Amino acid sequence: MSSRPEDAPQSAPLAQHPAADVIIEAVPNFSEGRRPEVVADLVAAIQTPGVLLLDQSSDWDHNRSVVTVAGPPAAVVEGLFAAVKVAAQQIDLFSHQGEHPRIGATDVVPLIPIQNISLAECAVLATELGRRIGAELGIPVYLYEAAATRPERQNLATLRKGQFEALVTEIANPERMPDFGPAQLGPAGATVVGARQFLIAYNFYLTTSDVEIAKSIAKRIRFSSGGLPGVKAMGLLVEGQAQVSMNLVDFTQTPLHAVMEHVLAMAAEAGVDVDRSELVGLIPQEAVLQTAAHFLRLPGFGRAQVVEVAVQEAQARAARAAALPTT
Amino acid sequence: MSSRPEDAPQSAPLAQHPAADVIIEAVPNFSEGRRPEVVADLVAAIQTPGVLLLDQSSDWDHNRSVVTVAGPPAAVVEGLFAAVKVAAQQIDLFSHQGEHPRIGATDVVPLIPIQNISLAECAVLATELGRRIGAELGIPVYLYEAAATRPERQNLATLRKGQFEALVTEIANPERMPDFGPAQLGPAGATVVGARQFLIAYNFYLTTSDVEIAKSIAKRIRFSSGGLPGVKAMGLLVEGQAQVSMNLVDFTQTPLHAVMEHVLAMAAEAGVDVDRSELVGLIPQEAVLQTAAHFLRLPGFGRAQVVEVAVQEAQARAARAAALPTT
Repeated sequence: MSSRPEDAPQSAPLAQHPAADVIIEAVPNFSEGRRPEVVADLVAAIQTPGVLLLDQSSDWDHNRSVVTVAGPPAAVVEGLFAAVKVAAQQIDLFSHQGEHPRIGATDVVPLIPIQNISLAECAVLATELGRRIGAELGIPVYLYEAAATRPERQNLATLRKGQFEALVTEIANPERMPDFGPAQLGPAGATVVGARQFLIAYNFYLTTSDVEIAKSIAKRIRFSSGGLPGVKAMGLLVEGQAQVSMNLVDFTQTPLHAVMEHVLAMAAEAGVDVDRSELVGLIPQEAVLQTAAHFLRLPGFGRAQVVEVAVQEAQARAARAAALPTT
Repeated sequence: MSSRPEDAPQSAPLAQHPAADVIIEAVPNFSEGRRPEVVADLVAAIQTPGVLLLDQSSDWDHNRSVVTVAGPPAAVVEGLFAAVKVAAQQIDLFSHQGEHPRIGATDVVPLIPIQNISLAECAVLATELGRRIGAELGIPVYLYEAAATRPERQNLATLRKGQFEALVTEIANPERMPDFGPAQLGPAGATVVGARQFLIAYNFYLTTSDVEIAKSIAKRIRFSSGGLPGVKAMGLLVEGQAQVSMNLVDFTQTPLHAVMEHVLAMAAEAGVDVDRSELVGLIPQEAVLQTAAHFLRLPGFGRAQVVEVAVQEAQARAARAAALPTT
């Protein structure tokens, strides 16, 4: 009941929307891909009321499972905490073998804004979840990406350097001190929690079988070699066709249409064309609207002008009005 | 309980979705734009439980109000029937004056598919609504567009020819016999009910003040002068800038990106360019997805790949599962 104006900027946007209108996604990675009964327990634990299972996949070689869920923030965070607890009970990093880099039973938990919530608000949720995992489960927690407490902790690869085996001793070093929980590893290892933008997995197929052209375009567009912010890319030969395979890790910084136009221009320089593109998995509505608006030269276009969204918002308003006590 | 297989093709698609997942829009036009209390009564009547008011506008000169509502089909049809009844009680066409063509107190009622419903299914709903208006309210009803009973009745202008004043005597002629209700006009006049695709009101601004270029492009793209199916267009001068102003009455036949590409090419021929475009009102999600997919050369792209839609559908599945009796 006390007035805490310094909290207002963070909590106000969430408060504007009833819980059911706010949606986040989470993609926890667990270090278990070989025992189906353990994976089933994890997937069951995460589905607290309101949490929707969108996808799950397990890899034997990686000995790792990736689960995609979505729902109102409070429900998703509750489900994640329950699953982290189950993972800590059933996975032992001291005996874990697998090809994929990992430092924990629950290795990494990204929270992703979907609807009526910002990346900064997801970072606050991630921080709260990390604090609980550290305090209540006694697991060391590192915050990463938008939730990172210092610049050098933004990158997941840095946090996983040397994997669980190196971290066992290095966790006592000041630079590897966890953000929450003890500076000591148990069988559950450490967990990385954070917030990031939706990752769009996107490929372009070129009208050529010359993989060198795809590799050259990939090198020019990827951020790590001086290209577009938030773009990871490589050139491949897929069924005889050159492919530029990409992860767009921040479509708010480098929209899909900007990537398309760069690739079109580079392909033309090389005397080839973009045959078609391919979306792997899902894409946020905002990324689609951005692209259509760019192509149509339609400034200021937003989701409020989409009929389905307008109907949904009207339904939410009606539900709120019905829920209000009559005075 | 009897088996009526001939009904199956029409009712099956609706049955696949729980009522709340199916959304139609309706845009009834009432011949009253001067008495706010009557408009308020109409707007109140149409909002039966589940019906969402998206927009309303009244025009004094036209003496006409246009109301936009959306919701599950059964609720929207119920609300429309209630509003048609109120209009019949409060509006007298024998004394009505207004600049806009009209034949009835409720002049025209288009039903528009929005989500999980086809145009053909909306035509069935329109037919049922028309039958009720005719039988229960004693108002002559004409079915138009996708619900028309014969080709010459598809066009609204044909049905409104000579307006209320001419129809008073002509309604006895075989070619003007209503589809439902008596072949005789009372103070409520006649009502046109039907189904059509969502109308997209869209404008292009050219990099010129030469209105003749806009007029020439409009003439070349509009269907009535041999252009693109479902495109109505005219050239205007708006704040010193040439504008091609359009209604796209069937974006499933002529998508927005096709119009854009034609206008871009014609503008280039005339030595000008498209400066920007403008959406007036709302646009269906499908039209946006089509446009983005075309620009990205992304075949097979659909709403199931949009995160928000995937979450919504997962929520609907969860709600259905929760509603099922446990056996």
